[in-house]
Parts: sequence; structure tokens; C-alpha cells
Amino acid sequence: MGLREAEVISALQKIFASADPRIQVGIGDDAAIVATSPRSALTSDMAVEGVHFNLEWSSAFDIGRKITAANVADILAMGGRCEYLVAAVSLTGGEEMSWIENLARGMQHEATLAGAHIVGGDITRGERIVISMTAIGAVDNPITRSGARVGDSIYLSSLPGWSAAGLELLTREISVNSAAADMALSQFSAPTLDYATNFSGATAMVDLSDSLMVQGEQLASASGVALALDQSLFAHHPEFEALNNLATEINADVWQWILGGGEDHVLLATGQNLPGMRIGEVVADSAAAGSRILGIEMKKTPVSWSHFQ
Amino acid sequence: MGLREAEVISALQKIFASADPRIQVGIGDDAAIVATSPRSALTSDMAVEGVHFNLEWSSAFDIGRKITAANVADILAMGGRCEYLVAAVSLTGGEEMSWIENLARGMQHEATLAGAHIVGGDITRGERIVISMTAIGAVDNPITRSGARVGDSIYLSSLPGWSAAGLELLTREISVNSAAADMALSQFSAPTLDYATNFSGATAMVDLSDSLMVQGEQLASASGVALALDQSLFAHHPEFEALNNLATEINADVWQWILGGGEDHVLLATGQNLPGMRIGEVVADSAAAGSRILGIEMKKTPVSWSHFQ
Repeated sequence: MGLREAEVISALQKIFASADPRIQVGIGDDAAIVATSPRSALTSDMAVEGVHFNLEWSSAFDIGRKITAANVADILAMGGRCEYLVAAVSLTGGEEMSWIENLARGMQHEATLAGAHIVGGDITRGERIVISMTAIGAVDNPITRSGARVGDSIYLSSLPGWSAAGLELLTREISVNSAAADMALSQFSAPTLDYATNFSGATAMVDLSDSLMVQGEQLASASGVALALDQSLFAHHPEFEALNNLATEINADVWQWILGGGEDHVLLATGQNLPGMRIGEVVADSAAAGSRILGIEMKKTPVSWSHFQ
Repeated sequence: MGLREAEVISALQKIFASADPRIQVGIGDDAAIVATSPRSALTSDMAVEGVHFNLEWSSAFDIGRKITAANVADILAMGGRCEYLVAAVSLTGGEEMSWIENLARGMQHEATLAGAHIVGGDITRGERIVISMTAIGAVDNPITRSGARVGDSIYLSSLPGWSAAGLELLTREISVNSAAADMALSQFSAPTLDYATNFSGATAMVDLSDSLMVQGEQLASASGVALALDQSLFAHHPEFEALNNLATEINADVWQWILGGGEDHVLLATGQNLPGMRIGEVVADSAAAGSRILGIEMKKTPVSWSHFQ
């Protein structure tokens, strides 16, 4: 309580300090002044305490990582690289300075992984902690959602579903002593983004922030095609067995996790001979544009698809 | 209730639509793709229902205008021009579609005044309405807070205090039938930014988001100087008499409004022969850096100076 804005800003300036000469004016003035590329990607993501994160389940560091990763992933999904981030945060006033600093360190950690700099923001007062970040990235050749062509293959940068598995372990208060459970909890707390998979040759791309079902539908609709996913291809992924075993162990639906869980921020891309995991083919849209799921049955309809998340 | 995210996004896409060729990809993909200048100003501002705005006092349109103006003002204060805005909004789910559309129209109205485009954002769910905006502007020659020199004059782009006067009318539930009261209420609801005053020759500049006292102190501290303000100079402003008469009429302190109220987003600049209202001189910092107020007495200490706002 009673932390003065000036003290907090001073602490954040130290954590976010950068010697990059592209940052002409950093935190502390009305706005940051940075060198920008001729073509930029802009995106914003907001996370609300009790909706997107929970103070009992996640450390400040992980909360900071997660919101940063969500923003960075949106830049990656356009074929860009994140350059700068700004963060606006509402605090209740009851936070310890150490909690605020750890939130900032988590942001800084993830930004550094992405090669980006946190150059500004806003701190304000509210009843709930709300964190909004905006990312600015450099893009040479943007990859939109609308470029998928019939005959393209469909790829994922990695296996989605780990974050959803972690969420299910937490909500059902199930403790499982296994590497798979640890990975699920870790991926839920702060997803590990995949910077290694090169999708620069993709015809269309999205990041799975909601789910493969939701974003697959969006990509298909934007491209005027349908996505034919092949269940058997998922099983080839080296992580599938571990995720499937975890689902079996706690009587959960692995396809609910894979198709309905999104916060791993896996990239979904279409094209020819791309790296990553091939999961199907782009086919003509015979009825309304959308995704068709072949050979996959879910025990129940994935929750939380249609409303604000 | 029950508005689907897709419906809301579709409505917002129409309101924010732009044919500007610098916007290669607008709302609807993972990120917007826009042409950016070699040097950009980045800033973010968050507004929380019940803290920064009140649904009883302000229309959705005015709330949208006000948060947009706060962001634009920060770009102006660096000597830049706002090019793009992104908005992240948490909604309770109880809002009518018309309320959301009017919020967007207010943002769009203010963005258009600034020559800027709203190119993206995020909509999420929360217990309170929280609006976060980020502005990206083009800057040729940045004007920071730290360039004020001894011997410079101090200028304001216009008379601050109208927004604070409006807030006082509302909080004290005073109804005054006068043009001055109407102006105060209007300026509180959504400040009219001053795009006409050319401060491009300033040595230092800030926007008064908190207050002349707070931002004057910040500018003085960053520049290692002191600001000597002259009360008598304020009285020359053509609006001073109306503001002063309103203060007298409701037994309020006009200097509390002028020095302690900030949300008009008036620009404070230092330099030689600038336009606007001259209010004093930059002098050497004889003790700790800071502002010295000459000839001005306030009845009470302005509230809300030191904590998060």
C-alpha cells in the first residue's frame, strides 16, 4: 500500500533498461522514441485477474511472461519479429513492490527471448489487476490469415494442448507426479513460444490463442477454404503419447485439450513443405467456409469458444 | 449479454474502417500491418471504470474520446503526430451493442481529429470496464522533458483547469447555468486537444495529464532547472476570467483547478518566443530540482498528486 508512482516507475526503469541505440528515449517521458521499420505489425492483448490469470496459481513472474508471450505470438503469427512492447497495468495498491518487480522481470524475460524491448507504459489504480500490452514488430513479408490455397498442407509449430491440460489439473485440483503433468503446469503458467520453427514460407498463419478449432475456423473462413485435419497425424508428434497418457490418467479428453485449448500460442500455418507437424490438407470449401475435422471425435463440445475471453 | 466476440469485432471493423493505403492489414488478423516512420513515439494509457471514468457522468462516446485524447496528447507532447492507435477493452458482458459501438465511435472521432487510425486491439471479459490504448506516432525531432534551459520562457498551449472544474461540479452535484459551467463539463467529459499551437520550437515539453504542478515538477527535475511561474500572467488568458468567476460562484479555488487539475491535456513547453500563454521563466535550480511557484497561494494542497492515477 501507498507505493508512490515515482518509486514504481524508477524500479521498472531499472528492470526494463536497455542500451539498444534504437531506443532514443525510453521510459520516463510522455512517450518512448524508437527507431521503427518501414512496415510494422501492431497488436494488443489484455489479461484480467480472475479471468486470464489467478494470483493463487501463477507467480507474478509467470503472469508477466504469459501476457508478453501472448503479444509476441501475435507478431510471430504475421511473420514478424517483435521489436518493442509497452505495458499498461492497473494495480489495486495492495501489491508488494517485490510482486510488481517480479511481474516486470517476467515481462522482461519473455521480451528478451523474443529480442524485444519494453519501452513504456502506464500504471494506474483499479479494483483488479489488469495488464494490457501492445507489441510493435518489424515485418518484411506479412503472412495473413487469408492466403491458404487448396492443396496446401496444414502445419502446427508444436503440439497444442499442454496449457489446457495444466489448467484442467489446476481446476480439478489433481496432483499428478509426472514429467507430463509438470510440463502441462509449466506451459499453463507461461507458455514456451516456438521461435525455432521457420514458417516464413507459409501462405497463411495464425497463432492459437483461443484454440485450433477457433483459429482454424478463422483461417479457413478468411481464406475461403476448408481445413481437413487428420487425427492420425497428431499421433506422430513425439509429445503426443505423453499428453495422451496424462489425459487417460486423469480421465480427460486429449482432443478437448488439443483442439479446444489455445494458450500455448502454437502457430498454425498452411503451405508446402513447411517444418513443424503436418496435420492435414487445405481443401475446397464445399459448403460454408470453415474447418472440417476428419476422424476426430470429442467427448464434449469445447467450452468457451464463442464469447469474449 | 451474450454478445459474441465475432459480432462485436465485425461492428468495430466497420466503425474503424479506413482506406488509407498505409494500412496494409487492418482489424481482424493476429496483428495490424502498417507503414511506419523511421522514428516513432510509443505511449500507452489505461482508464478504469470508477477510477478514470464513471458511467453515470460520461457517455460511451465521451469515454472513447477521452482515452483516445489522453494517448494522442502524449504523442503531441513529444513533438510527434499520432498515426495509429490500438485499443484493448475489457467488458462486463452486460453492455448493449450500442454502448460498445458508441465507445468505438468516440475513439474514432478523436482519432480522426488527430489524423490517426485505429487499427487493432483486443476485447476481453472483466468485472469492470477497463480501456487501454496505445498510440504510435511519427516524430521528426523529438522534444523531451529534459531540454529546458535557464532563460527559456514557459508556455501553456491553453488555460488548464476546465476539466477539474467540471469534475468539481459533478462531484459536488452543483448545477450552474452558465457557458463557463457548460465548458467545464464538456472539457471534463472529453477534453478538446489543442492541435493549433505550434510548439515545434520548444526546448522541452510535457502534456498536463496529472497537473501543472506534477508535470512542471517532472520537467524541471528532468532538465535540472526550476520553473518560476508568475501568477499574474495567467490572468491575461482570455478564458481566465470565466474560469475564475465560475470558481468564485461555487466557492472553489481557481488555482487548485489550474495548478492541480490535469485532464485537459494542455501542453507545457519551454523555449523562446513560442506561441500559447507565457506563464513564467526557467531559472537555475538553487536547491533541489523542481518547480517554484511564485505569487500563487492555494487554499489547500491539491489532492491526488502522488499516488497512481
